[in-house]
Amino acid sequence: MIGYPTKKRTQDPQRDSAISKARRGMSLEDDLNKTNSFYLDVDRAVIFKKPTPIQVVAVSYPARNKAKITEAYYRQASTTDYNGVYKGLPIDFEAKETVNRTSFSLAKLHKHQLDHLINVHRHGATAFLLIRFSTLDETYLVMIESLIQFLKEQNRQSIPYAWIKKEGILIPYSLTPPVDYLAALDKILTKGVTLNEEK
Amino acid sequence: MIGYPTKKRTQDPQRDSAISKARRGMSLEDDLNKTNSFYLDVDRAVIFKKPTPIQVVAVSYPARNKAKITEAYYRQASTTDYNGVYKGLPIDFEAKETVNRTSFSLAKLHKHQLDHLINVHRHGATAFLLIRFSTLDETYLVMIESLIQFLKEQNRQSIPYAWIKKEGILIPYSLTPPVDYLAALDKILTKGVTLNEEK
Repeated sequence: MIGYPTKKRTQDPQRDSAISKARRGMSLEDDLNKTNSFYLDVDRAVIFKKPTPIQVVAVSYPARNKAKITEAYYRQASTTDYNGVYKGLPIDFEAKETVNRTSFSLAKLHKHQLDHLINVHRHGATAFLLIRFSTLDETYLVMIESLIQFLKEQNRQSIPYAWIKKEGILIPYSLTPPVDYLAALDKILTKGVTLNEEK
Repeated sequence: MIGYPTKKRTQDPQRDSAISKARRGMSLEDDLNKTNSFYLDVDRAVIFKKPTPIQVVAVSYPARNKAKITEAYYRQASTTDYNGVYKGLPIDFEAKETVNRTSFSLAKLHKHQLDHLINVHRHGATAFLLIRFSTLDETYLVMIESLIQFLKEQNRQSIPYAWIKKEGILIPYSLTPPVDYLAALDKILTKGVTLNEEK
């Protein structure tokens, strides 16, 4: 058998499946849009991405009833990008991608996003982080409880991949939906969390 | 006593208080922004208005790292404007104002907003409508359960003011927060709802 190490994208040949190939090049955001739309279609949950906050400065009306924004600026969001309802629970999460293979830099998680996750968690929301290691083609769900514990115990600028693999839940591959994060969440909600079952 | 009927904004002189005057000219959206910000400050709930969805078509970069949007359009939202977490409950609501004194036109509530409220309610969210009769200076909280019942029983294009006064909860006046809708919600959550107690 001839190996082509430079063409291989992941370490694990089993990951190199047709599904994985089909998903390549799709951003986590695209995948989540499809996933949330799927959840809505099959009536599993109502979860939406919040629109990007934009400050509108000038608007013109080239046609009647049709406003054209001619000057506007991106503003920083005060919350996470995603929230909604699942099984009666308030759901709130942020999604991040990294090309790094060994760690997730905490600089990617803005302070207001972390503060918001901690805040909604205190008020009873089910809050988590989705982290995709795009080079490894693996996406993990990390509960805010675990992340808070990590931040308390460790004084680091990044979360090691090994920690995420151990403490997070690997989100299984599928085509529909592309990122079945509620399947991962179910494992946490229904029982004592089976970690690393795909190791 | 000399009356100035054309200057009077409300029918009820008791409503014409200092608080009421101070609030005049403030839109329900302004009031809700202040209220949600107050709830956040006193750590009572985490509820935000979603940004208005805008489709960005063209962006220029007049200065480094500063994106200026030069062409964009408003898109229709697929959800309600407000959601968040209160006492572990997913909260979802839409806020509407009317200058009409006798009814609230259902045309003001877009189909996707109503569908969304019904949808999140089915999934376990606490969903409601805030309706402000701005001419009367009264704001009511109407639970989606009541609204669904109304829509089932009545074939009307508008909800009569009298129905809202009977089935909704009048939100008490205050300066901080300007629209204490969680106080109104508490009445529903904690007991059999005392309706119309300020009649």
